[in-house]
Amino acid sequence: MPAAPLPPSLRLDGATLLQQLQELAAIGHDPQQGGRTRIALSDADKAGRDLLVGWMRALDLQVRIDRIGNIFGTLRADGDLGQQPVLMIGSHIDTVTNAGALDGCYGVLAGLAVARAYRAAGVTPRRSICIAAFTNEEGVRYQPDMLGSLVYAGGLDIDQALDLIGTDGSRLGDELARIGYAGDMEPGALLPHEYLELHIEQGPILEAENCQIGVVENLQGISWQQISVQGSANHAGTTPTHLRHDAGWVAAATAVFLRELARDSGGTTLATVGCLQLQPNVINVIPRRAVFSVDLRDPDEQRLLAAEQRLARFLEDAAASEGVTVTRETLARFQPVAFAPGLTRLIETCTRELGLSQRPMTSGAGHDAQMIARIAPAAMIFVPSRGGISHNPREHTDDQQLLDGAQVLLAVVRRRLEQA
Amino acid sequence: MPAAPLPPSLRLDGATLLQQLQELAAIGHDPQQGGRTRIALSDADKAGRDLLVGWMRALDLQVRIDRIGNIFGTLRADGDLGQQPVLMIGSHIDTVTNAGALDGCYGVLAGLAVARAYRAAGVTPRRSICIAAFTNEEGVRYQPDMLGSLVYAGGLDIDQALDLIGTDGSRLGDELARIGYAGDMEPGALLPHEYLELHIEQGPILEAENCQIGVVENLQGISWQQISVQGSANHAGTTPTHLRHDAGWVAAATAVFLRELARDSGGTTLATVGCLQLQPNVINVIPRRAVFSVDLRDPDEQRLLAAEQRLARFLEDAAASEGVTVTRETLARFQPVAFAPGLTRLIETCTRELGLSQRPMTSGAGHDAQMIARIAPAAMIFVPSRGGISHNPREHTDDQQLLDGAQVLLAVVRRRLEQA
Repeated sequence: MPAAPLPPSLRLDGATLLQQLQELAAIGHDPQQGGRTRIALSDADKAGRDLLVGWMRALDLQVRIDRIGNIFGTLRADGDLGQQPVLMIGSHIDTVTNAGALDGCYGVLAGLAVARAYRAAGVTPRRSICIAAFTNEEGVRYQPDMLGSLVYAGGLDIDQALDLIGTDGSRLGDELARIGYAGDMEPGALLPHEYLELHIEQGPILEAENCQIGVVENLQGISWQQISVQGSANHAGTTPTHLRHDAGWVAAATAVFLRELARDSGGTTLATVGCLQLQPNVINVIPRRAVFSVDLRDPDEQRLLAAEQRLARFLEDAAASEGVTVTRETLARFQPVAFAPGLTRLIETCTRELGLSQRPMTSGAGHDAQMIARIAPAAMIFVPSRGGISHNPREHTDDQQLLDGAQVLLAVVRRRLEQA
Repeated sequence: MPAAPLPPSLRLDGATLLQQLQELAAIGHDPQQGGRTRIALSDADKAGRDLLVGWMRALDLQVRIDRIGNIFGTLRADGDLGQQPVLMIGSHIDTVTNAGALDGCYGVLAGLAVARAYRAAGVTPRRSICIAAFTNEEGVRYQPDMLGSLVYAGGLDIDQALDLIGTDGSRLGDELARIGYAGDMEPGALLPHEYLELHIEQGPILEAENCQIGVVENLQGISWQQISVQGSANHAGTTPTHLRHDAGWVAAATAVFLRELARDSGGTTLATVGCLQLQPNVINVIPRRAVFSVDLRDPDEQRLLAAEQRLARFLEDAAASEGVTVTRETLARFQPVAFAPGLTRLIETCTRELGLSQRPMTSGAGHDAQMIARIAPAAMIFVPSRGGISHNPREHTDDQQLLDGAQVLLAVVRRRLEQA
């Protein structure tokens, strides 16, 4: 790689970053609800993509679209003819229904701000910088979520992905062509040397600890199960406690057990019973049947496995003591992802040098970085989410917090490319 | 009261009792489901009433109908011109939807069997015996349940009762007139000296203990509450356990607490969470809201009050520790009823003399006896229910068990009237 001048004068254009966030947020905006809706491969998504591609072209980035519709804007290093691995900065610009303005968009537009800083300083980076916007991260219309980055990382065959049928009956490949984003590049053709993703936390920790930057070290493993308990319906007034086979009690006892399991873990394991339904659901009838969901998460695969096993044993014991039958079905299972220590250490250093407060974090939600981590060293930077709220028009991060996060991203890229 | 001969030769005509149970069970029968449906004041209820009144007349009982439609068939003692208090044997013949054959009907037809024994022996009782069938005990169509006996005992004004609107929009008084059972006797005009009710247990205790007769000493108090918990919905993957305000966990912890409360009581308190609903009821969202029912029962009012207070304290503590708000609404509250010790002792004696096994019992369900106990000494006799099942076509008691119960009833009446 040829020598390039060090970029001492890289400056973040915060005003443009905030302005672009607002402009993108206006597309699909619902004045009634206050949020915006840009479901993947909808007309609104196309409008958002067009805006983004226009901004990439205005920065003289090389724009390429792959077959799953991922958008890449590359600021080429001298001598890179498109064959060298790039430093990739990515996220997504599709949204859930009635979304906030920041989820995904912030990471993509902060990537553009990094490219803009190089352009403004007249500096060519020592390694090509590529800004990526991945298709269908939210998974509202097409399952699974994180689809564009999954295909990109080789986790799902492109032709299978194009044949996916959406919740509205549409074929993904047809919709991609319809909005003009069925590109010709093979997914994964543009190899990332390393991957960075800046994102709002979507959780309450940074705000609660009054901390400016989250250095994301890993991404939790997820275990989703549906538990069905079959007991016996009986009269609430005439059935002695010791003769009951109460499916509802087993569900309740499991929820209480899971809270204890989470507490015992010292904070690493999260456990949630989000869905619960009883039958016959009548005030004076002991529940015959209970069906409930268990969402278990842990950044450590061994601990996640152990939590699953403790749950299974608890259910066996409860079934035996209450005289009910319990069946379990796995709905989803993802192993944890560990981000690249070299990158997370660099994020820590840059955050410290900028005088910002920080803490190591685990990402509870899934992100495109989780998929790209399969093929390249990856890391994420979080900024606070007010009240931990996301997927909601009330999603909010202060402008200064957004700019702090972008400063960290720019500093990390700069330091990384000093060594490139 | 004039002297009357002792009836040494009273014999139960078991075959006719079983035959009449079958004939009444055939009215409203659903060959598909196997059960029968005679909702109060329906055409099927009228057909059942007509059959019963015919049987009363065949025994030369004096039939009277009161303004709420309660049916009374009286076997007059010599010298009783209708002014003297009667020994009343009662229950009901209306049913729930798709009911068994025995609930209520057994008590009324066993009362007829007692009258038949007197007629067959040619003996006039020393006190008039009155067989009562009370209107709308089940409360399926018109609320509250046990309506006919409640009005009879003065617990609800007759004109208010006639104006009740059913689940089908019908006015009770209109339906009563339509089926020809709007009588002219004022409710309560026929004063019970004492009241006896023979009933299937509708619970599993007698069968589980292989016991033939339950001597019902009291009837539980009932406390029904609806609890609403308002927490905060949040992301299951990003919200640390200690920052959660999980309405579902509070509901689950309450159900587990109530089981412990019931266990701690040594069997006197029953506690059931029959209904439970979560919002938004999504696998990866901490429940924002939980609404659940609590059914508390105890035969002792002080213990029932104490259980209610313990529940209230638990909810306060859970609300404080979890950071949620809890509201409670009382849906129903009935104080316990203690049956007349003189009658229960006599039931014990007669059961022993007949060589049948027995145990003292508490009725968990509500019965007409609970209302009549407001105006006269009352008691109940239970026979086993297979599997504790009732309100179901699978409701079953063996013929011999039915006959054993009727023998006890006959013996109690005979012994009681020796002293009349």
